[in-house]
Amino acid sequence: MAYQFKTIRRVEFSDTDMAGIMHYSNYFRFMETAEHGFFRSLGVSIASPGGAGVGWPRVRAACDFRLPLHFEDEVEIHLLVREKRSKSLSYVFKFRKLNDAPAGEVARGALTVVCVTQQPDGTMKACSIPQWLSEKIQTAPPEMLA
Amino acid sequence: MAYQFKTIRRVEFSDTDMAGIMHYSNYFRFMETAEHGFFRSLGVSIASPGGAGVGWPRVRAACDFRLPLHFEDEVEIHLLVREKRSKSLSYVFKFRKLNDAPAGEVARGALTVVCVTQQPDGTMKACSIPQWLSEKIQTAPPEMLA
Amino acid sequence: MAYQFKTIRRVEFSDTDMAGIMHYSNYFRFMETAEHGFFRSLGVSIASPGGAGVGWPRVRAACDFRLPLHFEDEVEIHLLVREKRSKSLSYVFKFRKLNDAPAGEVARGALTVVCVTQQPDGTMKACSIPQWLSEKIQTAPPEMLA
Amino acid sequence: MAYQFKTIRRVEFSDTDMAGIMHYSNYFRFMETAEHGFFRSLGVSIASPGGAGVGWPRVRAACDFRLPLHFEDEVEIHLLVREKRSKSLSYVFKFRKLNDAPAGEVARGALTVVCVTQQPDGTMKACSIPQWLSEKIQTAPPEMLA
Repeated sequence: MAYQFKTIRRVEFSDTDMAGIMHYSNYFRFMETAEHGFFRSLGVSIASPGGAGVGWPRVRAACDFRLPLHFEDEVEIHLLVREKRSKSLSYVFKFRKLNDAPAGEVARGALTVVCVTQQPDGTMKACSIPQWLSEKIQTAPPEMLA
Repeated sequence: MAYQFKTIRRVEFSDTDMAGIMHYSNYFRFMETAEHGFFRSLGVSIASPGGAGVGWPRVRAACDFRLPLHFEDEVEIHLLVREKRSKSLSYVFKFRKLNDAPAGEVARGALTVVCVTQQPDGTMKACSIPQWLSEKIQTAPPEMLA
Repeated sequence: MAYQFKTIRRVEFSDTDMAGIMHYSNYFRFMETAEHGFFRSLGVSIASPGGAGVGWPRVRAACDFRLPLHFEDEVEIHLLVREKRSKSLSYVFKFRKLNDAPAGEVARGALTVVCVTQQPDGTMKACSIPQWLSEKIQTAPPEMLA
Repeated sequence: MAYQFKTIRRVEFSDTDMAGIMHYSNYFRFMETAEHGFFRSLGVSIASPGGAGVGWPRVRAACDFRLPLHFEDEVEIHLLVREKRSKSLSYVFKFRKLNDAPAGEVARGALTVVCVTQQPDGTMKACSIPQWLSEKIQTAPPEMLA
């Protein structure tokens, strides 16, 4: 069972804005990169029909920004499972800048996603996380979420 | 004195993702569009050196997603000033889909920004909102923030 | 029959990069905005199943950049149909900055798209532009394409 | 002296659009990723004041799209220097999908950038590529550009 995943991104020129720092909307793209890498680490693609067979729309996203990220900064995005419910998952994301020593946390994100299946009319309906998938996921130890 | 601003965006093809709906990171871009339109409505560009002379980095951003937005949906982003402090502003954003009747709220965002000036060494330092600007901004009536 | 369409965009903060100007990838998003507005002006959504029933993948895109665009610049994107073939359309896009006087051309784009239908196996296959749609579109006068 | 650089990107969910494939504007972001990696391979950051001391605005960008890229595809972007002039560089970019066997070319891009310095009034002016930098760059063998 897994409760965490780490991935590294380098801030690209197209991630920056005229203030010279990474645009705040891109932290949410980076969180998703970690989320999908977490699923691949479980042996399933978040989008594969042969995989989970379900979708994961977001119901809440948030981020606290402490220090800016600049072009070419290497940033580690550390996903932690904060909560696992029958139909939803909540994650915490710790952003750390690796090209500083010691690497400090520059931002912290949060994401809550709901497990859904597509209805015959095309709309989405919340459903239970498939058991075989749920059995691979556990919540992180509380001290890691502090 | 002003406490609100409304702008309208049409969801573009490049705003969507393979799930067929607007990617969640773009709600944060749309919030910023409303924020900067709010500043223009006060007669100042958020980026103009001849304007406020200060910057507005984000310290917290969040969004609750209720219903998805699709390609070519017309969405109203309604900015409301939730809090005005000496060095920061907090906004609420109500997303309403205009091509439905009645137009329902599909998402609600929040943003807290801090007023900063650039230090000689290039770093940013929190400062008081310039008085002439602060005098143009007030908080929205509590019933509008519900 | 139509051969042109104009739309206006204001350059947003999230469109800029750390060089202080609009990132070059966003000109291609703006072109597409004009393309889809052109289709709406013909009474059809480029994505509606009740519309054309076909897709329009890109086979070639290009842009020449003459002068930069900055935050809050108002830019007109002028689409012109350069070529109409049985299975493809080619457009030219003239970017003009409206907040200058006289408004000068700051960039010129080009796009070639192919009309496709989805095969039973999910892949796309080039097909003739539906006649009722083709009859609404004509090529622009040569002097406008100069 | 160097004339090429290769980098690998995995197509992310936020890179896709509602057609289920990578949005065409993102190929231009991927080209730039390879361009900036090429500069780092020469020991210089494209943005560092302590580096080249010059900027590289784009004057022309183009891309031919052959086959679509999908979510989680691994794509190699192979930069080749096509032309080196006193004040400009032209690159070719070959996109290959690595998760197919054999890996085929799915797109080919081109980019021409001009070396500029900032004038006292803030505008950019074309200038010669610094000699120490120019000496590190050569054009690729013609057979590699075919």
